[in-house]
Amino acid sequence: MAKATLAEDTAQSIIQYILDNHLKPGDKLPTEPVFMEKLGVGRGTLREGIKLLAARNILDIRQGAGSYVSHQRGIPDDPLGLTFIEEDSKLIVDMLDVRLLFEPHVARLAAARAGEDEKAEIMAQAEEVERCIEAGESYVAADARFHRLIAEASGNKVFGNLTYILNTSIAQNIAITKDAQRDSNTIRYHRKIAQAIMDKQPDDAASYMNMHLQLLREFVREKMS
Amino acid sequence: MAKATLAEDTAQSIIQYILDNHLKPGDKLPTEPVFMEKLGVGRGTLREGIKLLAARNILDIRQGAGSYVSHQRGIPDDPLGLTFIEEDSKLIVDMLDVRLLFEPHVARLAAARAGEDEKAEIMAQAEEVERCIEAGESYVAADARFHRLIAEASGNKVFGNLTYILNTSIAQNIAITKDAQRDSNTIRYHRKIAQAIMDKQPDDAASYMNMHLQLLREFVREKMS
Repeated sequence: MAKATLAEDTAQSIIQYILDNHLKPGDKLPTEPVFMEKLGVGRGTLREGIKLLAARNILDIRQGAGSYVSHQRGIPDDPLGLTFIEEDSKLIVDMLDVRLLFEPHVARLAAARAGEDEKAEIMAQAEEVERCIEAGESYVAADARFHRLIAEASGNKVFGNLTYILNTSIAQNIAITKDAQRDSNTIRYHRKIAQAIMDKQPDDAASYMNMHLQLLREFVREKMS
Repeated sequence: MAKATLAEDTAQSIIQYILDNHLKPGDKLPTEPVFMEKLGVGRGTLREGIKLLAARNILDIRQGAGSYVSHQRGIPDDPLGLTFIEEDSKLIVDMLDVRLLFEPHVARLAAARAGEDEKAEIMAQAEEVERCIEAGESYVAADARFHRLIAEASGNKVFGNLTYILNTSIAQNIAITKDAQRDSNTIRYHRKIAQAIMDKQPDDAASYMNMHLQLLREFVREKMS
């Protein structure tokens, strides 16, 4: 028990170190000897603490190369606790209904508030999704990033992570089969959403996001049930 | 590496066992010898698998009493990955803005769809929150359960867990100080929301939920910034 607590204390110190030093996803932690001295703990305890944070997706341990701040930013693998909810077309529609409540509003905020850098990133990501689709590659990750960038530009600190969670929890299944109509919906509306955000047109951004998700919902209702 | 994979396979087998046997939160797993035989693994591997699931809030390990299905239902400790978002009054308002998008709609669905058992549970939980407030006890958990029961009665499988997550992530801070006006808002509107759901009045349920959260938002804006 005492050992577990020491490891947890060390994990907390590592989190504080990351915050104090403004480390970003992908940044490397100090080497073991340096870090042991900074935190005042032994090698075994340091490793236990790092393992706890890797389990929480806060750190990535790369064998032989050290530990890095994870790109997952501490978002757990099953954030919504869906392990015990049977995944079927009802769950996928339910998830889209949740996204339909949110994402048009989020796109509206993004169009009103996005800065120039954010606009450029959103447009570039719309192009990246398009490139993936045209190359016949999986675009699940690129698509989730597009929606997340919009949510992060909304100015609400919770929307970014939440949109990422809602997009990645079960999105895999929507894109599991090839479907030309779904893909052309995605290309068409991503482009329109990005353009509306570029042009600072909140109502257009909300409307195109709504269309995009409604068409996805219709696709799931007709093709997957 | 091979050992880690074996533990993960065992964790997956335990999840399957829970699903196949329809175990509910609070149910006990078989004893070690029985479970080792069922899953065809050794004691060390079984314990590693159980530890992985405890870290994911799927199981509770009670020292000397065995392992139980967790009441957390696999929802992780920091589902939104807020560890790296500084908690301040802006974050609390952002969270309320997210809840304002959702919960009036969720209350509307609940009023349209709740069954008799669900209605009775929601009303009883409104009374439990009231009892906590009047006794001067913390009502954070009782309040979160009230909102979760409504979300579960909505018929959308995602809303229940999501509402619980949004309610528990930072709700602690809203209730951290004693405030008679905030508490009387909670008593008044919880009662009205519960009654609207009892009476199958979707618009009333949505409207009272909206009022309840708007007043909380006003409270945070004025008292916490």
